[in-house]
Amino acid sequence: MSSVNTNDSVLIVGSVALDSVETPSGKVERALGGAAVYSSVAASFFSPVRIVGVVGEDFPKEHLEFLASRRIDTRGVQIAPGSTFHWKGTYEGDMNQAQTLATELNVFQDFKPELPQDYRSSKYVFLANIDPQLQLQVLDQVDGAELVGCDTMNFWIESKHDELLEVLKRVDVMFLNDAEVRQLTGTVNLTRAADQIRKLGPKYVIVKKGEHGALMYCDGSTCFSAASYPLDEVADPTGAGDSFAGGFMGYVARTGEVTESSLRKAVIYGSTLASYNVQDFSLERFKKLTIKDIDERYEEFKRMVFFEEMG
Amino acid sequence: MSSVNTNDSVLIVGSVALDSVETPSGKVERALGGAAVYSSVAASFFSPVRIVGVVGEDFPKEHLEFLASRRIDTRGVQIAPGSTFHWKGTYEGDMNQAQTLATELNVFQDFKPELPQDYRSSKYVFLANIDPQLQLQVLDQVDGAELVGCDTMNFWIESKHDELLEVLKRVDVMFLNDAEVRQLTGTVNLTRAADQIRKLGPKYVIVKKGEHGALMYCDGSTCFSAASYPLDEVADPTGAGDSFAGGFMGYVARTGEVTESSLRKAVIYGSTLASYNVQDFSLERFKKLTIKDIDERYEEFKRMVFFEEMG
Repeated sequence: MSSVNTNDSVLIVGSVALDSVETPSGKVERALGGAAVYSSVAASFFSPVRIVGVVGEDFPKEHLEFLASRRIDTRGVQIAPGSTFHWKGTYEGDMNQAQTLATELNVFQDFKPELPQDYRSSKYVFLANIDPQLQLQVLDQVDGAELVGCDTMNFWIESKHDELLEVLKRVDVMFLNDAEVRQLTGTVNLTRAADQIRKLGPKYVIVKKGEHGALMYCDGSTCFSAASYPLDEVADPTGAGDSFAGGFMGYVARTGEVTESSLRKAVIYGSTLASYNVQDFSLERFKKLTIKDIDERYEEFKRMVFFEEMG
Repeated sequence: MSSVNTNDSVLIVGSVALDSVETPSGKVERALGGAAVYSSVAASFFSPVRIVGVVGEDFPKEHLEFLASRRIDTRGVQIAPGSTFHWKGTYEGDMNQAQTLATELNVFQDFKPELPQDYRSSKYVFLANIDPQLQLQVLDQVDGAELVGCDTMNFWIESKHDELLEVLKRVDVMFLNDAEVRQLTGTVNLTRAADQIRKLGPKYVIVKKGEHGALMYCDGSTCFSAASYPLDEVADPTGAGDSFAGGFMGYVARTGEVTESSLRKAVIYGSTLASYNVQDFSLERFKKLTIKDIDERYEEFKRMVFFEEMG
């Protein structure tokens, strides 16, 4: 990566969780997880991160220490009486869709995000998948952000539709998967659906398609189509979308540049982080990942799509 | 397109049909169709074509005249007593999958491909989707082909498995969609499945993924990932895969170059032809299509995937 490091932080709010996951490759019980955790660790490869979330008294201290060891500021993680948010799920077949077996909100039920004073001027903000009402509470506390990214899920699209529309008005980059794009708009054709979402607020809509790559829509038609990295084996898809968004936001914060050109590269760095993440359970692959690994795979993405020089 | 025109022909064998198709955009009754027709017309934008197939006495003369008007040699199309092959189908929702309502083989039932003498030395051969036994009969009649491409479908994978394996041994480029790759191998992971198919014969395996683009596998891992062209509206997906393969084969014949570099461009030209084809019913879009249209969309493919200079 040749760009200048701005040292700007990414503020990330979302779930911090303990996940129990079973896939054809194996299983883990109450392993570190959560949208804010995956995206924060992914972003931290490029930029400092400020994380906002809540855990219960049962949350292993070593997990917070792991986050802090990666220039992630954890002062925004509240420790509340009770148990940490717990998600239990399985994946089968092509593993494109998780089967949720249990969602225990626990301390997340009464969570009210409170941003430490110095978090509030963060230039880069990522609203990971949580209740849109909480996303709005975070936006009310930040001031002067240059780029706000946002993720959501089918559950909120259905149950908090109006609040989500409020969030969309205040977001620059919306991350959704293809099913969510269709659900949110009622439109089957992705190009038209993404255009409809752009009219609700976000200048950029990024559609995550798992093994089929990602599309970034900018101005009425697709501006960028990114391949996915081909993997012989996916150990655990949990956190792929969060890693993608975190890598994207971290890269943008690092360059300090919000142009179509830098966002295209950010999509590829996001894809790179997502592709590594799914090669092991929980955050295990990220724990061993190096900048050299990231740069190598980024180069492979270039080779993979190249067919003729531009211009 | 800057490459030299070799004037080599592509030999194409497959169905010549009358199709009755209904989609959310409209419907046609007994319109010109068939795998060999779509692929021949697509290839004819780049190279001369020699088509091999069979029609009934009911086949409108104007269709043969249309083919002949596009430097497609139709001497290999037999006219047999009886009715032309008729396919009837519909598409709904995301239109990724046709629902077949009727398949009337008619004259196709007793078809034995007979190649005119001067067809037999064709350097480029495309075996469009027909019974693998017929594909073998064609291969027995050609001599010295430089590149043999082949398509098939779920029906033959199931009912003529052994014959298909014989075909695969003699094929250089195998075109399949993702479901067929998985069906043929019993392997869910596409990268591994494609590698297994390469071990059965074809040096190149091209996986057509419809709205998700295409992948070309060369040597154990993906060598090329191609985006699909985003369309606001798909009128009729019939013939998309055939147009893709035809465009691919025609471009290779035009350049006379079988290298990874030329095959990558061929994939993009194939994607370009497929994307135009689905914008109207039957062969209607191709009838109006110009080389300028093709070159413009090819350039759009470049812009769509570009994120950083190579090297």
